[in-house]
Amino acid sequence: MFKRSILTTLLVCLALVVQPAAAHAAEVNEQTTHLFQYHRGQDVLFMLMLVAFLMLFIRRYEWGVALATLLVLSVSWPLYLIGHTQLLGQELNIEAIILALFASITLVIAIGVFLGHISTIHYILAGALFVPAYMVNEWFLFEFLEGVFDSGGSILVHMFAAYWGWGVILALRNRRVNDQPMKTSVHSVSFVWLASMLLFVLWPSFVTALLPPEEIIPGMINTYLALMAATLVTYVLLYVLKRTIDPLIFTYAILAGGVAIGATVDIANPWQAWLIGLVGGIASTLSFIYINDWLCRKTGVLDTMGVQNLHGIPGIVGGLAPIIIIGAGWSQLGAVVGTFIIALATGLVTGFILRLFKPPAVMLDDSESFPTDTMRATDPA
Amino acid sequence: MFKRSILTTLLVCLALVVQPAAAHAAEVNEQTTHLFQYHRGQDVLFMLMLVAFLMLFIRRYEWGVALATLLVLSVSWPLYLIGHTQLLGQELNIEAIILALFASITLVIAIGVFLGHISTIHYILAGALFVPAYMVNEWFLFEFLEGVFDSGGSILVHMFAAYWGWGVILALRNRRVNDQPMKTSVHSVSFVWLASMLLFVLWPSFVTALLPPEEIIPGMINTYLALMAATLVTYVLLYVLKRTIDPLIFTYAILAGGVAIGATVDIANPWQAWLIGLVGGIASTLSFIYINDWLCRKTGVLDTMGVQNLHGIPGIVGGLAPIIIIGAGWSQLGAVVGTFIIALATGLVTGFILRLFKPPAVMLDDSESFPTDTMRATDPA
Amino acid sequence: MFKRSILTTLLVCLALVVQPAAAHAAEVNEQTTHLFQYHRGQDVLFMLMLVAFLMLFIRRYEWGVALATLLVLSVSWPLYLIGHTQLLGQELNIEAIILALFASITLVIAIGVFLGHISTIHYILAGALFVPAYMVNEWFLFEFLEGVFDSGGSILVHMFAAYWGWGVILALRNRRVNDQPMKTSVHSVSFVWLASMLLFVLWPSFVTALLPPEEIIPGMINTYLALMAATLVTYVLLYVLKRTIDPLIFTYAILAGGVAIGATVDIANPWQAWLIGLVGGIASTLSFIYINDWLCRKTGVLDTMGVQNLHGIPGIVGGLAPIIIIGAGWSQLGAVVGTFIIALATGLVTGFILRLFKPPAVMLDDSESFPTDTMRATDPA
Repeated sequence: MFKRSILTTLLVCLALVVQPAAAHAAEVNEQTTHLFQYHRGQDVLFMLMLVAFLMLFIRRYEWGVALATLLVLSVSWPLYLIGHTQLLGQELNIEAIILALFASITLVIAIGVFLGHISTIHYILAGALFVPAYMVNEWFLFEFLEGVFDSGGSILVHMFAAYWGWGVILALRNRRVNDQPMKTSVHSVSFVWLASMLLFVLWPSFVTALLPPEEIIPGMINTYLALMAATLVTYVLLYVLKRTIDPLIFTYAILAGGVAIGATVDIANPWQAWLIGLVGGIASTLSFIYINDWLCRKTGVLDTMGVQNLHGIPGIVGGLAPIIIIGAGWSQLGAVVGTFIIALATGLVTGFILRLFKPPAVMLDDSESFPTDTMRATDPA
Repeated sequence: MFKRSILTTLLVCLALVVQPAAAHAAEVNEQTTHLFQYHRGQDVLFMLMLVAFLMLFIRRYEWGVALATLLVLSVSWPLYLIGHTQLLGQELNIEAIILALFASITLVIAIGVFLGHISTIHYILAGALFVPAYMVNEWFLFEFLEGVFDSGGSILVHMFAAYWGWGVILALRNRRVNDQPMKTSVHSVSFVWLASMLLFVLWPSFVTALLPPEEIIPGMINTYLALMAATLVTYVLLYVLKRTIDPLIFTYAILAGGVAIGATVDIANPWQAWLIGLVGGIASTLSFIYINDWLCRKTGVLDTMGVQNLHGIPGIVGGLAPIIIIGAGWSQLGAVVGTFIIALATGLVTGFILRLFKPPAVMLDDSESFPTDTMRATDPA
Repeated sequence: MFKRSILTTLLVCLALVVQPAAAHAAEVNEQTTHLFQYHRGQDVLFMLMLVAFLMLFIRRYEWGVALATLLVLSVSWPLYLIGHTQLLGQELNIEAIILALFASITLVIAIGVFLGHISTIHYILAGALFVPAYMVNEWFLFEFLEGVFDSGGSILVHMFAAYWGWGVILALRNRRVNDQPMKTSVHSVSFVWLASMLLFVLWPSFVTALLPPEEIIPGMINTYLALMAATLVTYVLLYVLKRTIDPLIFTYAILAGGVAIGATVDIANPWQAWLIGLVGGIASTLSFIYINDWLCRKTGVLDTMGVQNLHGIPGIVGGLAPIIIIGAGWSQLGAVVGTFIIALATGLVTGFILRLFKPPAVMLDDSESFPTDTMRATDPA
């Protein structure tokens, strides 16, 4: 008896030592995972800001783009979090932060379609109207449908951004913006190069933001390979088709590799990733060269930043890739088609509401928002 | 006897397995914590460099600001570490690195007050004089006083920077700088937008740099909410009061949300954080519009970059916030008042010493430091 | 018997609890290490892009530099990984990613030597030829030789980049580029300041990318101290020798501290690190002022970006530092001499191959690649 009691005592003592150790190890693991997500989440917000600089090339409309970006971010991020926690009863943790950043970056991409179509102050309203539309599509993709592959947001972010934005301009029909000259300057385009190159660097953090730890490094490899394939093919295509490298096609189309790899970042092997990036780059470049003007003529409206060429078409390519790569089923096709419809429909509604307000007096011109004496003083030309 | 010995042996064996596991888990935890601090610390240095670009808007004084920033960093960071380890006997670890970066970023903010007031080479002296003053205030806040809330540096960094800088210009009384034109250019201001937007992104790393792991994600949420509230209210206030958005107020005042949340980042809930950011943004915008010129007239000296409007007033707002949020006691008020006095007094001493040297021949002009033929060749106007 | 069986059972149960705990802790540790390397690796790619902006100062050759950087990255990174995994049979993991990034950043530094010497499309070929040459030198340093100290790439990256590039221009002998004017503009140089200052911030991630976790924080301290010493001494030297601060010497030479600390980042103490940075800064500044023109006259060819002054000489300083600091042996000297020979020889071969193709029609001018109407429209002068 004595022996057994001493045995029990010792074992209990040991258990007291062991259990905290096991618990501690597990806790560290989860906390560590969250802290890594802190950094990838921060990278996503970094990218959101860089998307603004990607759109900074219109010489007289640089600050307006940055201002609009900050306004829609500041409206949409808290609104998404309120919906996510208060309406849907989810926790306010790092995943919620990242999901909200995904919503906001989708919105910032989307406003590229209708930059100059509405007054600056109406971006606040557009941002508020965007959030429920985005959340409906998010629910459609991951609650209504089952087995949709889209870890890196080819469909959720890029496709939705492009076609929601197109819904808005189709409803607005503000054709006067089509006639605005889009003059550039060497340095406004140098900012675009900077933004594009840093988006390239940060892209893996975006597509792996919500992946489990063991899938992050393979996701990084896939993402960089897709971006590099798009870079090479964009250069070759522009060289072959146009004999010259339009910097405002090149700097965008190279990112189509990142757009296209979104849905397959965690299921493709490196060779497949490179090929998906290649197809994404080809699709984007051809869209910039051939589809862009055709679409403008057919619809009569202008996609100011050519969002459809970088995010729309390559988003569709990426969204369909899982069907070819691993034989994903009907739900994947449903995700692409459904997102197209939901985005366009909610965009149209948003556009009709925005149409109730006056369009900007001066389009694609910083003098709409900023002191004109500053603008005069600042013009180096 | 045999059984007990075998039992003991087995338990010892087990303990040998268990103990390293427990120890290992703890070690990983601490090392992991430090490596995360590596990245947040690096973000703080990134922010320090961006503060320079926030001040880059004066057309003929871009490179001078960057040069001065690099010089004061290179003097103050090692000096702080020498004081911290040799005088105070602290360890040279990641916490020391971050504390030293806090000192350096405070200094870089502070030189914004007297940019153009002194010659470039005298920044080296100013940097050396700053370090002991800053360390006295650090001791006052966290050793002399007890229970001061300031994890994110509303008082330690922002208030001290503003009023130490003001001490310097009050002693210098170099009024000729008041007459220097501050011409801007589109792209010099675009650099300010870039800097402001990236400071926004990185801000959580600054205010959570020294927080324990479990407080970092909540701190991130609070910081972004504060910044977004400040962004919206700054836009609305400028629109209402001035009918136009002065980019050199807007890009600064939105950051006042980050300044103001510093002292309450780890104690506020998200709603409080949003409100603190709102109040910070209002205080900063009103200070830019109303207090700035009044202060210049009353004192006769010019705060070149308006540091008082972004860091001074919102720093006070942030420093006092814990009193309202969680009923912090007299020591919190003492921290605000004491820092104001220590900063101003040590700044005055620094200014009197700097006054012994000649002011720059050409103020707010890169031709003070840089080859004039380069400047001519480079001027696009 | 019963007691022993119960004892055994209990111990086995305990072991089942304990073992996973220990295993878990170890796994977290390795996975965590890899995820931190994800971020340091991303920083290295960030730096690679910034190297392009460091070279962006020639007014009419901004976009061409960015384009060439993206092309050589997209060719060299996948090629290195194919060689590393298929030929050498190594795993495709985060270490492979970082080793491949080291190869690519070496190449991006190297093209600075011959920017404008070859046509844009030939950079693709140059990138392909570079990879095997680099891998041979990597094998020479870490397989053939034993006990070489170069964790942070003073020899592997910086020296190889400079002298491989020099090999290329010596073979090309395209002297017409010597006569191209290198006009700058205020903002093209402001991009250089930005790039230099952010490279300063990110440098520790580069030199510690492959270090074990416990050496990362000390490595960070050493790197920043070396960079700061170089910053101060560059300023003082330029001030003393030239009475003016040439921004296109200053922004480069301050980084020589980072170049020089590469080989000793994990073996120097902080004081030694500061001194190594000091010597690196002096060597680089003197090389820019005195050696650069002399070398151009003697050889008749132009190192477009002065890569030899920032990466060549300070790389040699850094490569030899372990001999002085810890008495490293002959293999360290062999590493420096051998890399010089291998780099120059393989560069010459590359240059002779590139010579088979036509040099660019317009050198150091973006009109070689980009639409000339864009260039006209964008020119603010």
